[in-house]
Amino acid sequence: MLAENLKSLYLDEWNRYVGHEFVRRMEHGDLPLENFKFYLVQDSLYVEEMLRAVMRSTELMPNDMAIRILSSVVLGRDKGMETHAFLEKELGVEKSSRMTMTTYSYTRHLRYSSTIGWPQFLAAWIPCMWGYSEIGKTVLNSPNRYYRTWAEFYASKEYADRVSVILEAMDRFNGDITEIKDYFLISLKFEQMFWQAAFDMEKPI
Amino acid sequence: MLAENLKSLYLDEWNRYVGHEFVRRMEHGDLPLENFKFYLVQDSLYVEEMLRAVMRSTELMPNDMAIRILSSVVLGRDKGMETHAFLEKELGVEKSSRMTMTTYSYTRHLRYSSTIGWPQFLAAWIPCMWGYSEIGKTVLNSPNRYYRTWAEFYASKEYADRVSVILEAMDRFNGDITEIKDYFLISLKFEQMFWQAAFDMEKPI
Repeated sequence: MLAENLKSLYLDEWNRYVGHEFVRRMEHGDLPLENFKFYLVQDSLYVEEMLRAVMRSTELMPNDMAIRILSSVVLGRDKGMETHAFLEKELGVEKSSRMTMTTYSYTRHLRYSSTIGWPQFLAAWIPCMWGYSEIGKTVLNSPNRYYRTWAEFYASKEYADRVSVILEAMDRFNGDITEIKDYFLISLKFEQMFWQAAFDMEKPI
Repeated sequence: MLAENLKSLYLDEWNRYVGHEFVRRMEHGDLPLENFKFYLVQDSLYVEEMLRAVMRSTELMPNDMAIRILSSVVLGRDKGMETHAFLEKELGVEKSSRMTMTTYSYTRHLRYSSTIGWPQFLAAWIPCMWGYSEIGKTVLNSPNRYYRTWAEFYASKEYADRVSVILEAMDRFNGDITEIKDYFLISLKFEQMFWQAAFDMEKPI
């Protein structure tokens, strides 16, 4: 599977992302809720921009791939929104439209990748989608119930099915891996920066 | 002048950019050449991407504005390239195609802005173009001859004319400043990060 190849190519960067201190602390339950709330706000802003990038990229996909991606991800995102909305309500998170430079930069990368070609976009998108499957499983047994609720969504079968659609689509690329690997690597770096920004509570723009 | 208004709105951020430690050290001549060489490499990569963004944005400009911008900037860039090439040769700079995350992020911002509208693109572009006029004048009397050579280009009348074309084009925007100010602000932040990355010699991707 091509996604597996990309992952093994940058395994260190992958591990620095899925095993980031922020994730470890969610797993152990000792991440301060303030950091988690900060994360939720930036993540909502991220998801909105990610969806725009998905929509743009579908213009460049074979039609059947575009339809499959749109129906699994865009139309099937209600569950994720529900989890987010539940946590935001429970924790009293105040909505904000102010991104950090990290959120802004990462999402500019996704929007850019979405204009280059579908293989480039998928390579840039996979770290987020696939990585959260892995992270969800790690955090699932956290002693903190909010972190468990959060993890249950990403560890769910529903979410895994969604990820499969994307990983299978990636497998239809039969060009050279050098055409897409940088997009994957750059997203791995941005994912690390995204956790770090939530850890440091980076000042929004 | 609209560019003046943008500058006064974010004067602190502007000053943190044009008065960055990196600039001060060029001015005083005690910036290590290694940092300057690092900067030259990233700046070349930046300029290439900036030009692509200019080209994309001209599609959204009134025709006469597009032609004026293209002729002053794209076709008139030889002098800047000459200075760059001279310094690179003198200092034995090795070309590289490897951007830092900072260079990549900043240029994704420019490429993104270039797809939104010409006023947004100009607002994002002005910090770089206009700021270097100011920085050139500051560094012009540096005791280091390489930094002087570098500054002479940005302090030249030729460069100032080029900047005027852009500032005048910005003045043709008659919408509300709130539609463009974030693009300007974000570039000011990226410019600071760009100096800082050269100062820290950020590891390329």
